[in-house]
Amino acid sequence: MKRMLLVVAYDGTAYHGWQVQANASPTIEEVLNRALSSLTGEAVAVIGASRTDAGVHALGNAAVFDSATRIPPAKIAPAVNQWLPEDVVVQSSREVSMDFHPLRAASQKTYAYHILNREVNLPTARRQSYFVYRPLDIAKMREAAAHLVGEHDFSSFCSAGTRATDMVRTVLSLTVEQEGDFITVRVKGNGFLYNMVRIIVGTLLLAGEGKWEPERVGEALAARDRQKAGPTAPAHGLVLEEVKYLDFD
Amino acid sequence: MKRMLLVVAYDGTAYHGWQVQANASPTIEEVLNRALSSLTGEAVAVIGASRTDAGVHALGNAAVFDSATRIPPAKIAPAVNQWLPEDVVVQSSREVSMDFHPLRAASQKTYAYHILNREVNLPTARRQSYFVYRPLDIAKMREAAAHLVGEHDFSSFCSAGTRATDMVRTVLSLTVEQEGDFITVRVKGNGFLYNMVRIIVGTLLLAGEGKWEPERVGEALAARDRQKAGPTAPAHGLVLEEVKYLDFD
Repeated sequence: MKRMLLVVAYDGTAYHGWQVQANASPTIEEVLNRALSSLTGEAVAVIGASRTDAGVHALGNAAVFDSATRIPPAKIAPAVNQWLPEDVVVQSSREVSMDFHPLRAASQKTYAYHILNREVNLPTARRQSYFVYRPLDIAKMREAAAHLVGEHDFSSFCSAGTRATDMVRTVLSLTVEQEGDFITVRVKGNGFLYNMVRIIVGTLLLAGEGKWEPERVGEALAARDRQKAGPTAPAHGLVLEEVKYLDFD
Repeated sequence: MKRMLLVVAYDGTAYHGWQVQANASPTIEEVLNRALSSLTGEAVAVIGASRTDAGVHALGNAAVFDSATRIPPAKIAPAVNQWLPEDVVVQSSREVSMDFHPLRAASQKTYAYHILNREVNLPTARRQSYFVYRPLDIAKMREAAAHLVGEHDFSSFCSAGTRATDMVRTVLSLTVEQEGDFITVRVKGNGFLYNMVRIIVGTLLLAGEGKWEPERVGEALAARDRQKAGPTAPAHGLVLEEVKYLDFD
């Protein structure tokens, strides 16, 4: 038996998120399990690094599965892609030790949130960016973002329904970049609470629209109360860019 | 009666191109006609500037229609968008003189062709870029492109089935830019033959892959023979970025 680590990219538009659920299908996990089971002839069940929500995309989520297959580890990726739909593509595959767990291993995740900020929406961008009509002040968004960098109790930036008890997380960096009509909020951290990135973006947008002074974001953080932060930005602007495992990446 | 000029953006993925056809539906023209007819209560028929092929996208195609509507010209765009599907969005609308014709007025068109050049495809980019696995040499592509700039007989870069008789066109610029894994071929001209941009890209790719020396592109052009140029690159990488009317833009 070997444990394989996959890097998985997907367009989340057509999926009910990562995790297999009772009443919502398809999910990314489901199509991966089916494809890997077809490929190996075994009953494969992947464990993902990040259980992304419905509509969220990934360039590099991570997942492991165990198999006795004789397919060389690096060949799993191209082989399983033959069994996958075009909106889920395994980027790479390799063997890891049997005690490696994608949720427990020390990692650094990078999420990007894309905003299209112009007067009229662009159909070609609609699936992967959140369209915001009101002009955004990037400088204000950056000022607001500075309040969230570092180790903090992020209770204000966590949706109800979380299973987390320790609400302290470390935001390693939080940047706001503009290129043409697109604004990208990019956040790196070693762990995120439920909906944390989308609530951060929803809150930075309030600062960008001039509805909040940037300092208010710091006050919202200090309050440790979800009601004090901004709304949860829509899923389709979010993409999990990378899960980097610190032990071997 | 007034003549209105629309700037139209669309994701061409779900469409059989611009033009209404006997056996293929939907088309962009069809959904525009239907939406404008619903909005105005008249039987509206648009005339487009560029009859893009099935799968080709646009940020700014142009179209005119005549109407006696009392909706102010600039308000047509937001109003008709209420009647349009999310993959077709009118960017702006204005009145033009009754003798303005989108095909006859002097214009400059900009097309971009997006190539994703990496080992494995990215699902989030699949609808708007052509995935090329083999590494591309940008310098060779640029060298090849230089042969096509200027006024030439582009017979070698025109698919059969054209109604054109004069095959001379002027390529004002043809650039090859790289950003990360994406390569963009961008071409400006005052008119293009049938499939001309896609054949140019298919030919530049031969140079980029090292299958052709860049000079061979010049020889293909001089031959005035479609058989001497490269293949037609797939539609989904192509986007009509702008139709600029020289008289008033």
